[in-house]
Amino acid sequence: MRDVAIIGVGMTKWGELWRKSLRTIFTETALLALDDAGVERFDSLFVGCMSSGLFVGQEHLASLLADDLGRVPVAAARVESACASGGLALRQGFLEVASGASDVVLVGGVEKMTDVTGCEATFALGTAADQEYEGYHGLTFPGLYAMMAVAHMHRYGTTREQLAMVAVKNHDNGSKNPLAQFPFKVTVEGVLGSVLVADPLRILDCSPITDGAAAVVLCPVETARKLKKPFVRITGTGQATDTIALASRADLAWLESTYVAAGKALAMAKRKVEDIDLFEVHDCFTIAEIMVIEALGLVKKGQGGKAVEDGLTARGGRFPVNPSGGLKAKGHPVGATGVAQAVEIVKQLRGEAGDRQIKGAKRGLAQNMGGTGGSSVVHVFEAD
Amino acid sequence: MRDVAIIGVGMTKWGELWRKSLRTIFTETALLALDDAGVERFDSLFVGCMSSGLFVGQEHLASLLADDLGRVPVAAARVESACASGGLALRQGFLEVASGASDVVLVGGVEKMTDVTGCEATFALGTAADQEYEGYHGLTFPGLYAMMAVAHMHRYGTTREQLAMVAVKNHDNGSKNPLAQFPFKVTVEGVLGSVLVADPLRILDCSPITDGAAAVVLCPVETARKLKKPFVRITGTGQATDTIALASRADLAWLESTYVAAGKALAMAKRKVEDIDLFEVHDCFTIAEIMVIEALGLVKKGQGGKAVEDGLTARGGRFPVNPSGGLKAKGHPVGATGVAQAVEIVKQLRGEAGDRQIKGAKRGLAQNMGGTGGSSVVHVFEAD
Repeated sequence: MRDVAIIGVGMTKWGELWRKSLRTIFTETALLALDDAGVERFDSLFVGCMSSGLFVGQEHLASLLADDLGRVPVAAARVESACASGGLALRQGFLEVASGASDVVLVGGVEKMTDVTGCEATFALGTAADQEYEGYHGLTFPGLYAMMAVAHMHRYGTTREQLAMVAVKNHDNGSKNPLAQFPFKVTVEGVLGSVLVADPLRILDCSPITDGAAAVVLCPVETARKLKKPFVRITGTGQATDTIALASRADLAWLESTYVAAGKALAMAKRKVEDIDLFEVHDCFTIAEIMVIEALGLVKKGQGGKAVEDGLTARGGRFPVNPSGGLKAKGHPVGATGVAQAVEIVKQLRGEAGDRQIKGAKRGLAQNMGGTGGSSVVHVFEAD
Repeated sequence: MRDVAIIGVGMTKWGELWRKSLRTIFTETALLALDDAGVERFDSLFVGCMSSGLFVGQEHLASLLADDLGRVPVAAARVESACASGGLALRQGFLEVASGASDVVLVGGVEKMTDVTGCEATFALGTAADQEYEGYHGLTFPGLYAMMAVAHMHRYGTTREQLAMVAVKNHDNGSKNPLAQFPFKVTVEGVLGSVLVADPLRILDCSPITDGAAAVVLCPVETARKLKKPFVRITGTGQATDTIALASRADLAWLESTYVAAGKALAMAKRKVEDIDLFEVHDCFTIAEIMVIEALGLVKKGQGGKAVEDGLTARGGRFPVNPSGGLKAKGHPVGATGVAQAVEIVKQLRGEAGDRQIKGAKRGLAQNMGGTGGSSVVHVFEAD
């Protein structure tokens, strides 16, 4: 397989974008990425989107977006793996270039979530769980992650305050990201005093509902060299599934799909997790980040809460996690999130991350997750 | 890229399967394909599905289906391109094996369409059109294809009877397919006298709403040889988009995405359309088959209606089209259709198609289409 480079990235301001439709949000973002790459043409398009059917009554997204970009008859495919749809799109784009099937590939992720009511959005997000065995009985995602949090707290002594510290850290990072939906700081007291959603999770433990898109342009490393622009390599990709229903898991407090996917991606990159300088991970809820850093091997099982409290994952810590602000502060347009993680890592490795720059960062890892971990996609990125 | 073989196929009886859920339909079918292939394990799963979100309130299908098959943590991805989702899944599976990323890949397509009302199904199918510029104004798919039919009739003199003859031929073929949803014959008079849906299209011009799945197992040709089982090669794949909205097309009576995708697939296979012995094409409406055979180059522009009337596309004709019964008689569970086309061609090339066998068939072509042709996927298959 050929070596693959990211030669361009694009992201626009995320939030409640009531004046823009899904296609507009995507196209503006894709054009930024193409412009950053300095290319006009691409051979194929992969777009990650979780549920444009339920959110905006539109399927057949690949055709719609290729059309809106003015690029028909280009080959175009939508991929879906709930909130890991963006990471999956990146993986398919990577394989498309690596295999030689295409030379220049545009990978985008998009979700338009605020055209429906809160109830409808909760239902749409709930379709990432097992509809027959979880959704039908009234379980929502805050409820599912609340059960995971309770299991983790019970088994390992993780504290309510440690959960809050994830939000504090990510909002601190997000306050330095002008494209974030909520670029403000929060305090532990603020999180603990915020509205209860599903005990023990409060509103400031939850990532928001967001409209947004992100895009990257891929090509073979050889081509990237000829273009004489700074580029970032994708050196590893891994993908894995787990039972979709939480009830089928052997351990509620462990993310097996992340563990397996990360193992594959790191093995492919011939790296250990200690070699990685920064991480963008799937903090859809504060407890998720704590469990993810354990599954990635940054700390031992059960030590995630303490690691956050000790500052291990802060911008200046040994393993900076979510310098972008994460899903928590940056926002979580579900299909776009996995691609936005790649955008942040590329900016960091190019030294263009402004006030949130991790100094000297050479290698990054992105972990994107669907449902309660029913699927995970992990990528390793390295500066050239 | 490596040469790719299909070593197993599976399909169950299609219809209104009220007693089975989406996952059950898929899993039964996938197990048939794995059994036919004589393998238990696979490295990755691709599933084509158009809108499980709107039809059964379930996204995150790849995780759900890998789980129901008992195969987690296998890598699994859902792809979507409206009614071309199945063909797209086959293409992604092909690239996965060809690139060397996986050795054994399970490709499935599934749709469960009858758990909702007819109105809801019409809305869900309508999301394959441009929601803002077509769906919002009340256009449904019978309406869109009716406009294409009128354009074709007006420009080329295609007759109402010729449209009916597509249904007559495909139901004649389907009457010999025990897995078809509607395995009975119809007459020209029967079609012309059936209920009007969208002038000039009548109910017997339309493919039905169907529950069903189809699955194939792929591996490198080298591996297939070692297994010493009969196999079929995939020698060409092509994919293309067109404007999603009909109003943006230069010509309402021409399918550019099919033309481009077929050109790519045949070029990759190093074949001309004259080299192909049988065709499975996307006859979602009778007019669609007429336009597809023109875009594939079986006949010249405007000659599709006459070709059907002359028997060119009958089982005993020069270019047999839809020996399976097509979408019209076999049924059209939208995400499954593209994979089912591959299943039929494999059965034909293995000489296992029973009463509908095309004698001596060595090469087949499948054309799968999304929306009104906003996307097309074409594959070429050859007996070893």
